[in-house]
Amino acid sequence: MDIDKKIKAGDIRAASRLIRDIEDNIPEAKSTIKHIFPYTGNAQVVGITGSPGAGKSTIIDGLIETSRKKERTVGVLAVDPTSPFTGGATLGDRIRMQRHAEDPGVFIRSLATRGSLGGLSKAVGDAIHVMDAMGKDVILVETVGTGQQEVEIINYAHTVLVVLVPGMGDEIQAIKAGIMEIADIFVINKSDREGSGKLQRELMAMIEMSPIPPGSWRPPIQTIGNSFKPDDFQADIEKLADKVLEHYDFLVKNDLIGDRIRRKTMHELNEALRSNILEPVLKILVSTGELDRMIERLLTKESDPCTLAEEVARKYLQGCI
Amino acid sequence: MDIDKKIKAGDIRAASRLIRDIEDNIPEAKSTIKHIFPYTGNAQVVGITGSPGAGKSTIIDGLIETSRKKERTVGVLAVDPTSPFTGGATLGDRIRMQRHAEDPGVFIRSLATRGSLGGLSKAVGDAIHVMDAMGKDVILVETVGTGQQEVEIINYAHTVLVVLVPGMGDEIQAIKAGIMEIADIFVINKSDREGSGKLQRELMAMIEMSPIPPGSWRPPIQTIGNSFKPDDFQADIEKLADKVLEHYDFLVKNDLIGDRIRRKTMHELNEALRSNILEPVLKILVSTGELDRMIERLLTKESDPCTLAEEVARKYLQGCI
Repeated sequence: MDIDKKIKAGDIRAASRLIRDIEDNIPEAKSTIKHIFPYTGNAQVVGITGSPGAGKSTIIDGLIETSRKKERTVGVLAVDPTSPFTGGATLGDRIRMQRHAEDPGVFIRSLATRGSLGGLSKAVGDAIHVMDAMGKDVILVETVGTGQQEVEIINYAHTVLVVLVPGMGDEIQAIKAGIMEIADIFVINKSDREGSGKLQRELMAMIEMSPIPPGSWRPPIQTIGNSFKPDDFQADIEKLADKVLEHYDFLVKNDLIGDRIRRKTMHELNEALRSNILEPVLKILVSTGELDRMIERLLTKESDPCTLAEEVARKYLQGCI
Repeated sequence: MDIDKKIKAGDIRAASRLIRDIEDNIPEAKSTIKHIFPYTGNAQVVGITGSPGAGKSTIIDGLIETSRKKERTVGVLAVDPTSPFTGGATLGDRIRMQRHAEDPGVFIRSLATRGSLGGLSKAVGDAIHVMDAMGKDVILVETVGTGQQEVEIINYAHTVLVVLVPGMGDEIQAIKAGIMEIADIFVINKSDREGSGKLQRELMAMIEMSPIPPGSWRPPIQTIGNSFKPDDFQADIEKLADKVLEHYDFLVKNDLIGDRIRRKTMHELNEALRSNILEPVLKILVSTGELDRMIERLLTKESDPCTLAEEVARKYLQGCI
């Protein structure tokens, strides 16, 4: 059976291998991705973002549980160096995650976040496609940080959860600075901690004040209690899962899902163009030694980067400069 | 006087305008950057990175003070949405920073972190060039986060400070996951807080265990006390400033500075290539309506991103595919 057919049939071994090949930038992976593309577009993609230690993995663990109870299949993609999936977190976390490892309805993979930004971003999109083509109903994508990467998740996800914890006073600063725009649902994790009420009030005030156009989605806040009280915790997670579905329904009912899909598609095309236009030029500059010669000219201040790049463009671009 | 001459003469108005133009991607800025390039390469560029609320701005404020006492001129570039310079932090912070506003030896600017990653990265490099060409002796670049952006600073800085605070237990996780490699100096800020000793011990253990090749720089740890005790605080900052100079001397004496400069140059050329190769192609795709047609073909799953990008490459690239 061809690898694309295997992936469509949900073959875990074939899918794992393809994701690894995507990450390693193996040329064959490219052609497989082309073949599976028609099978994509059916999964609900949920981004889960927040600082290291905010408890994103615990929430994902809970969401897996809830989805499986409803017999929805789940893909999890960790793009977070501090995720238990990538080995960054404590042993306890990693062991807890293991309980899903035996469930054929759950497929968990992580992507290393090293290397070029653009490259990573493309790998994220492709890995989501693989899980989508496998037929996973929901794909949970875990990303970290307060930087650009976190904001990038909106390019892939239908729904974005921003996870906060009480007692990190500066969270609100980060939110004000750019996360606000991407959050579809705010999650206050470890909500039994001191400062939870304050964080909730501040968030509510912020949502109140933000210029949300009429008819748009207004991000709700879901608190999640201590994961050491499993019943309470899972009840909160179920409320969160309901909100995630509500958000998706809202997008569909209000004809907004098309905009999100278009944005995802646009982003993906951009990444493909980068990899097909810029990379071949770089490759030839390296193989001919031209790149080294350019570096020398820059080090001696004989030329500047922009002038050199313009020379390269004149040589290798046609019909558009 | 030409704008490049003005900038070389340290004209604040011309420099501010150029940085704004760089950020707004104004075509004229490109040509000015070319002209100032030969005047660059003299400043020591110091990256200061860490989570929001770690107190990076307070440390920068202290470093400005110390540098000015030694009659070194200072440029500060904030690439941090939570920085007081960009308006993210508390009013108190912002007011404290103001005291340098009147000093002609200090030039402070911020860059918005919105927009495309590549674009921002290029703007950071160009803004550093502007301050370098102005003749600033030291340029302090403030970045935030645990993500890629933080790691990117190594592409610009000679010396990278990673600022940590006690009591955020998950910091060490983030460090393990990728910051370790980029830190030239670790700074434990607010070191009078509980957990400071523990953090210091953990860091030391981590540095001990990490595979640092013989003859390489071993990152030291500098603790910084409470900024409400100005004398103690400033004494700590002076020790930090000494370590920053020590690191630079180490690079020079051990012939390692060349590697850093080469890495910076390589990165810059890469950015210039992206902007001169990829962007013209995108522009023509937009202006001819080709991009919209491609998006439609993707939405109907008639084609896939990679196949379309290959078509574009065949049309606009010559001699390298």
